[in-house]
Amino acid sequence: MHIEVIPVEGLPIIHPGDNLAEMISTLVSFEDGDILCLASSVYSKAAGYLRRLDEITPTEDALRIASKTREDPRFVQAVLDDSTDVILEAPFILSETVTGHVGVRAGIDHSNVEDGMIIRLPPDPMGAAGEMRERISSATGRDVRVIITDTCGRSFRRGQAGVAIGWSGMQAIRDFRGDHDLFGHILEITEEAVVDEIAGFANFVMGESNNGVPAVVFRNCPQWSGHDSLHFSRDEDIIRTALCNK
Amino acid sequence: MHIEVIPVEGLPIIHPGDNLAEMISTLVSFEDGDILCLASSVYSKAAGYLRRLDEITPTEDALRIASKTREDPRFVQAVLDDSTDVILEAPFILSETVTGHVGVRAGIDHSNVEDGMIIRLPPDPMGAAGEMRERISSATGRDVRVIITDTCGRSFRRGQAGVAIGWSGMQAIRDFRGDHDLFGHILEITEEAVVDEIAGFANFVMGESNNGVPAVVFRNCPQWSGHDSLHFSRDEDIIRTALCNK
Repeated sequence: MHIEVIPVEGLPIIHPGDNLAEMISTLVSFEDGDILCLASSVYSKAAGYLRRLDEITPTEDALRIASKTREDPRFVQAVLDDSTDVILEAPFILSETVTGHVGVRAGIDHSNVEDGMIIRLPPDPMGAAGEMRERISSATGRDVRVIITDTCGRSFRRGQAGVAIGWSGMQAIRDFRGDHDLFGHILEITEEAVVDEIAGFANFVMGESNNGVPAVVFRNCPQWSGHDSLHFSRDEDIIRTALCNK
Repeated sequence: MHIEVIPVEGLPIIHPGDNLAEMISTLVSFEDGDILCLASSVYSKAAGYLRRLDEITPTEDALRIASKTREDPRFVQAVLDDSTDVILEAPFILSETVTGHVGVRAGIDHSNVEDGMIIRLPPDPMGAAGEMRERISSATGRDVRVIITDTCGRSFRRGQAGVAIGWSGMQAIRDFRGDHDLFGHILEITEEAVVDEIAGFANFVMGESNNGVPAVVFRNCPQWSGHDSLHFSRDEDIIRTALCNK
């Protein structure tokens, strides 16, 4: 069966308090099993996860790091406020957020928002995905699965790619443990990060600039089973260990 | 416009010498502009990029590394033969291949092949993509774009995801430099790794085990422009520098 990927076109600029689930539901005829990918920035704007730079007072740590990264110390403070562990301070802040997600500048964005404002990642992206799912169910009666996306850099490869930071109605990792290949061998590669693979393609369809397509619907995707342990713990991540010991 | 993603179903097990382009063209009605994602393992099988373990004599380096990774020294030798720079020896070999791609075990696979055989990555994946594109054009008269995919682990996040190792008819990176956001700011994130985002979703549709869907077609994808510099050079890659200095 062919998979259909549907950009949600026609959403206006989102403001705090907007009911995103209802707005999207008027633009898409959802079917049971659809996967809605939603950019975290747009979720955060509707939910009010915004900060005004002129209300932030930088600490000494923020001033010190800002002098290295040449960023606004108030912006750096916001990044530190949303970080549970700073892995790198420069040339950019790479840190872990409360959910275990590791990203540049704790995912804080000042694109697509008014001057002097910044957009935080949703502090509970799993809850955000679950809430969107319930709201769409209330609005449409459809059982729609949800992924909240962000963009991240990668090791070894240039360019950003979309990743999943929250999901509901599915498991993050497809687990092939115990499966066999075409020749009957037990598979060695057993875990596939399917939520990231879906979020990446959604990010491609969204575009990054002024396209105004912050939501994408996937129809007829195959089902999978697995688990939700998407983030390495600190001690099992070779690259993180190397970065922290350098 | 909706994007359609079409799994190419019905391909038999591929053998050296098979004309993959023709076989796929009988299973899909290609349209101009379609993107064909093809698993590198299947391309390599058709092109004969296979090795027999019993014809490989391990060097001292391979014996030494194999004692750490607990792998067959002949397999390790094959990995070293396809590596231009070894970044990590254990707990798994992480190395750069001749194209600049960094991956685990140089992308060498012993799934989905007869016992005692291994599948190499195509040594010239850009050429492989171009060749597939030309052959499909000859077989169908259609201008089809091609991505050769592999799967890779990531930093910080568990699980494999599909990536592009070769492409033809497109540019790897979508470059937003100079673009503005919805509020007129110059965008900070300017480079998006679209070939990897497409390859990742293709990998999800392919599955990893015995599904037998090594090719996926994308129809009505948006166009983009950018450049092909997908791999960081050694000195601009912070993570690689940290790994090499640890």
